[in-house]
Amino acid sequence: MAVGPDTFPVMHPVKGFSLGVTRAYVRKPDRRDVVVMQAAAGSTLAGAFTTNAFCAAPVQVCRKHLREGVEQLSQAWYLVTNTGYANAGTGAAGMEDCLAVCEALASETKVDINHILPFSTGVIGERLPVPRVVAGLPACIANLSEEGWGEAALGIMTTDTRPKGASVQLSLGGKTVTITGIAKGAGMIRPNMATMLSYVATDAAIDTVLLQTLIREAVELSFNRATVDGDTSTNDACVVVATGQSGFAVKEGAEGFDAFRAALCQVLVELAQAVVKDGEGATKFVTVRVEGALSVAEAKEVAFTVAHSPLVKTALFASDPNWGRILAAVGRAQVDQLDVEKVYLHLDDVLVAEKGGLSPQYQEAQGAALMQKEAFTIRLSLGRGEAKADIWTTDFSYDYVKINADYRS
Amino acid sequence: MAVGPDTFPVMHPVKGFSLGVTRAYVRKPDRRDVVVMQAAAGSTLAGAFTTNAFCAAPVQVCRKHLREGVEQLSQAWYLVTNTGYANAGTGAAGMEDCLAVCEALASETKVDINHILPFSTGVIGERLPVPRVVAGLPACIANLSEEGWGEAALGIMTTDTRPKGASVQLSLGGKTVTITGIAKGAGMIRPNMATMLSYVATDAAIDTVLLQTLIREAVELSFNRATVDGDTSTNDACVVVATGQSGFAVKEGAEGFDAFRAALCQVLVELAQAVVKDGEGATKFVTVRVEGALSVAEAKEVAFTVAHSPLVKTALFASDPNWGRILAAVGRAQVDQLDVEKVYLHLDDVLVAEKGGLSPQYQEAQGAALMQKEAFTIRLSLGRGEAKADIWTTDFSYDYVKINADYRS
Repeated sequence: MAVGPDTFPVMHPVKGFSLGVTRAYVRKPDRRDVVVMQAAAGSTLAGAFTTNAFCAAPVQVCRKHLREGVEQLSQAWYLVTNTGYANAGTGAAGMEDCLAVCEALASETKVDINHILPFSTGVIGERLPVPRVVAGLPACIANLSEEGWGEAALGIMTTDTRPKGASVQLSLGGKTVTITGIAKGAGMIRPNMATMLSYVATDAAIDTVLLQTLIREAVELSFNRATVDGDTSTNDACVVVATGQSGFAVKEGAEGFDAFRAALCQVLVELAQAVVKDGEGATKFVTVRVEGALSVAEAKEVAFTVAHSPLVKTALFASDPNWGRILAAVGRAQVDQLDVEKVYLHLDDVLVAEKGGLSPQYQEAQGAALMQKEAFTIRLSLGRGEAKADIWTTDFSYDYVKINADYRS
Repeated sequence: MAVGPDTFPVMHPVKGFSLGVTRAYVRKPDRRDVVVMQAAAGSTLAGAFTTNAFCAAPVQVCRKHLREGVEQLSQAWYLVTNTGYANAGTGAAGMEDCLAVCEALASETKVDINHILPFSTGVIGERLPVPRVVAGLPACIANLSEEGWGEAALGIMTTDTRPKGASVQLSLGGKTVTITGIAKGAGMIRPNMATMLSYVATDAAIDTVLLQTLIREAVELSFNRATVDGDTSTNDACVVVATGQSGFAVKEGAEGFDAFRAALCQVLVELAQAVVKDGEGATKFVTVRVEGALSVAEAKEVAFTVAHSPLVKTALFASDPNWGRILAAVGRAQVDQLDVEKVYLHLDDVLVAEKGGLSPQYQEAQGAALMQKEAFTIRLSLGRGEAKADIWTTDFSYDYVKINADYRS
């Protein structure tokens, strides 16, 4: 199940960034399960990774290689992704497995090992079948193409029901600049610095430090505002590549900077929302908007408390405008001295509750009609300050239980 | 659904404390839905209440009356509970409704209004039908009996599938001292200072200040360690009454103090566990024990993060020893500088994971067999310090979604 139409967009290629996919039988037969991406020599890269203490071996290696590899601008970078196994909770053996894949790809492509970035997603706690992944690498390399985004979006999927992509082009300094990205993720989604896996490339030129700043900012406004089940994954990673081949350079304060920053953020927001819409068992896509908070952190705390409440989520599934459950969730959020008299609750534009109780003009039929929609906004105004935040979430359905109880993922 | 046998215990009466129940048609026909309890003149009382900012009108009134009424030792106290409507999220009108019930009972029983303690539980956000509740009061008063515990335990139920009681007797200073209590609650269960509703009485004599200290401590070790869905209710209340009629006085440091304290805690733990076992849709009763933490707060943070993880809860429902999900939840808990190499995970006595990965001697069949049980312990050792905490929780089943999506509660 997923919310809304499957609208995989036109994916504009990014000069200097190519993608190749193969079926390597990593865990299941006949599915695209190994993806290699190549960023041409001269590219800059930056990433955001899970904050989970049990982060997977590939996340640790990615962080290290990004740090170490930054000096060798004359070499291409290779990103290698396998599905089936997350290589998390695998201890020292998992680290060896991850490095074995990196070594094989480095040898195949003739770059230093610290220009290889590994990614894994799938079941936690089981060993990676290294020979099968390695056997798939030559086919991936042979398939490398700047047109490979759509195949790659399919190749990184696990419990996802649809590929997720976003692509924008803008004209900056007389050049056409492209930003294109893909993401995967459907469960264990409460990113904290990144989503399950997301890869974004642009042909703008951006120095590594600025790219890191921009990705942090964009992730905070996109993946860090998305939640399906509140469970932060062990493998979350979001990497941005800037190949520079459009001839346009992004520089802080210079012409086109604000437009580029906004466009990068838009691509990540579209990917994050696509992940939520494909949330396990999702039948609804709900924006929780908290306004009038003292800080963005406070707005997010209230929004996530509402979004993670199982009672709110089951009411969303039932299309039941059970505003009492929403207020009860607000009331237990970690907010000092909340004055419930000042709290307003709207469903889209319908005022439901105010002054600690039901609004006199609210009609239950309005709320009920509105919650039949596939997508709507729960809007909460706290009356404390000027800060606000939007986050995106889904409902809890029978299918959520089914997906997560019927087989091991 | 509920876990384990329905073992409502022998309820020893408490001299000076009586209970009366009636069917008042508050919201549904033909169910016990109004309960009055009487604590004889000379009793001391203390309570612990929800920390939810949207706390219900009766919670606010209870707190105020407990504070104000403490001086009039010559008057009896009356506790009045209705089910059907929680009288939460009802604003100023809800406060008037609550006080109207209190006034009617004060007039009926000839005590000051601040010796009336009101409690409500049921649907949030709808007005209390005051005339129906008030009409039921005379019958409750006529039924008042020290033998009324079993009827009262039924009378306070909402989505509960069984009554919950606990009762102990101990010999202190040559006197038989009784502690007996009841509780209700099945959903919106993540008490924070108290459970949905719990009433405990003892015939020991205890001054109000000490009683408040003892109840706080016992609640922290019982209801504050229980969670079904992580949703702290708007109406949580736990009240303890000490009638003094056993002739034994509890005094800090004096003979029998430690035994009494332990027994009070035991009664509350039994009630809290009974609430979890009757958790909405529950098929499992799971203790999450975190050891080796730097503080009890840290141990609770890790334990609650595991207990609230929807992915862990659905794996519990599936009897799937999906230890990767457990470690992933530990990894996202708010713990500074967790060293995953030092974390040990046991299911009951079976070592499952160590040093960031699967234990070499672990056999999947062991874990699978163990998780078929109705009750077991997830034991996590963090290797950081000496602090520990147990909390109790349930799984997420289809029935949890059904109960909370099929009708409004």
